[in-house]
Amino acid sequence: MRMIVCTTINEARAQLAKRRLDAPEVAIGLVPTMGYLHEGHASLMRRAKEECGYTVLSVFVNPLQFGPNEDFDRYPRSAEQDIALAEACGIDLLFMPTVSEMYPVKPLTSVIIDSVTDRLCGASRPGHFDGVGIVVCKLFHIIEPHRAYFGMKDAQQIAVVKRMVDDLNMPVEIVPCDTVREDDGLAKSSRNVYLNEQERQQAVVLSKSLQAAEHWLREPGMTAERLAGMVRKTIEEAPLAVIDYVELLTYPDLSPVEAQALLPNYPDTLIIALAVKFGGTRLIDNRLFIPLGGVQYV
Amino acid sequence: MRMIVCTTINEARAQLAKRRLDAPEVAIGLVPTMGYLHEGHASLMRRAKEECGYTVLSVFVNPLQFGPNEDFDRYPRSAEQDIALAEACGIDLLFMPTVSEMYPVKPLTSVIIDSVTDRLCGASRPGHFDGVGIVVCKLFHIIEPHRAYFGMKDAQQIAVVKRMVDDLNMPVEIVPCDTVREDDGLAKSSRNVYLNEQERQQAVVLSKSLQAAEHWLREPGMTAERLAGMVRKTIEEAPLAVIDYVELLTYPDLSPVEAQALLPNYPDTLIIALAVKFGGTRLIDNRLFIPLGGVQYV
Repeated sequence: MRMIVCTTINEARAQLAKRRLDAPEVAIGLVPTMGYLHEGHASLMRRAKEECGYTVLSVFVNPLQFGPNEDFDRYPRSAEQDIALAEACGIDLLFMPTVSEMYPVKPLTSVIIDSVTDRLCGASRPGHFDGVGIVVCKLFHIIEPHRAYFGMKDAQQIAVVKRMVDDLNMPVEIVPCDTVREDDGLAKSSRNVYLNEQERQQAVVLSKSLQAAEHWLREPGMTAERLAGMVRKTIEEAPLAVIDYVELLTYPDLSPVEAQALLPNYPDTLIIALAVKFGGTRLIDNRLFIPLGGVQYV
Repeated sequence: MRMIVCTTINEARAQLAKRRLDAPEVAIGLVPTMGYLHEGHASLMRRAKEECGYTVLSVFVNPLQFGPNEDFDRYPRSAEQDIALAEACGIDLLFMPTVSEMYPVKPLTSVIIDSVTDRLCGASRPGHFDGVGIVVCKLFHIIEPHRAYFGMKDAQQIAVVKRMVDDLNMPVEIVPCDTVREDDGLAKSSRNVYLNEQERQQAVVLSKSLQAAEHWLREPGMTAERLAGMVRKTIEEAPLAVIDYVELLTYPDLSPVEAQALLPNYPDTLIIALAVKFGGTRLIDNRLFIPLGGVQYV
């Protein structure tokens, strides 16, 4: 069956309603994206395809999750390539609304998630997760998926969305998926296209420092403060890197870990998360440390 | 078919999932209430029953929509009578969760609706509509109704919920229903039970003043300021009445009307809304004025 492309909410709903009436037992999987699709998105689509009888991809660059001085206008877009990749991945319905379709008037409603948004990108990008909250809410209400697939590169986003879903009893399962990386370890991101050759080469320091952290964490006597310091120092060795944050927190609560806490055999799942600028490009990455016998992800 | 009573979210969802799978074309109607059901609720249930193949009544006294000095603890409850009335009205599923079922932990997520909550009960009861926002969101996600029925006595609540539904693209139609009144005109309310005999007699002034306002509004030269003043004066004639607010606003935007605006032939739908205390009991009522050729309600 050929992929259907819908640009309006009513069209998408009509397609889904028909599908639900014909096959009420079929699970609907949603992969929400901002487009400019890469191998990371493709892996989410393939996972959705494996687990759901009907798969929906949304492509929408959401202005509300960009700050006034961020890259909304220059965020890369590639509708034609996105359509081709979605179709190649076997997506059933591609939802690509315009900004005025999603926000015909300024919303008076805000969906605000506290506490898990206090740190990391929530602190560096004020208002970012309010924008994520409302757009994910809207997409879930338009598509009504049984499962929604998100990449762990945006680990805080998953923690925030999961908390919103739990608090509001949204009837959707959030499925976190592994980060997909370039051969040298750099996490795939639509923003990687901004990097010049030198920046691209040096950006490998992010995944390298996280990989090293995995070993350092197991060293006897290693503390939270020392580990974050070692990661920071590793990154600073790349001359073009400007650190926004490097933090070690619990996951998915994203509470701070006491500076002197001993990390080997720490009882909770931890995340080391970082945001680093190379020139005008802000990249994020993270690594999860799951205690033995612990529960994966959220 | 006998009515099913569910106290947990999982039970209610299992019932609804079964129903949806068996009869995906059947419309589900929800009547969300705080219980202590009266004839006003019964009229909502009957309307839902007329329009939907499967009807759900929720009974939940939501602590989050009560202020710290409000009547949450003493709010009247009557589970057995509620069950009997729901069954008599032909409700299919009665959802009666406990507070800990609805809020197993303190939610980090808030659903905040601006502007339409600035006045009337939004101003008198700080936080009230934040509580309404989250609980209605939760109930809509648990029940997933096609239509939800609300009484126009809570006209601001309807405006707020409708705006939330529109802003968040919630797949539910909000159906406003006429206020049901006692023989002497007093709007039915679970809180009427608090009134002593004298208060109950004097409370009739609320509906009387709104009825009079309907005539005054048509008087040549009548202004917004004068009309509100006349309603206030009428209410003050009842010795036990203590006015919280009397306001004339547009509906459903709830924007102020200029004091000197001429009301006969005013182009927008207007609402005169009031909240008045009799002893410890705060009662609300309102009347809508729809211009000729105008659109009813929201």
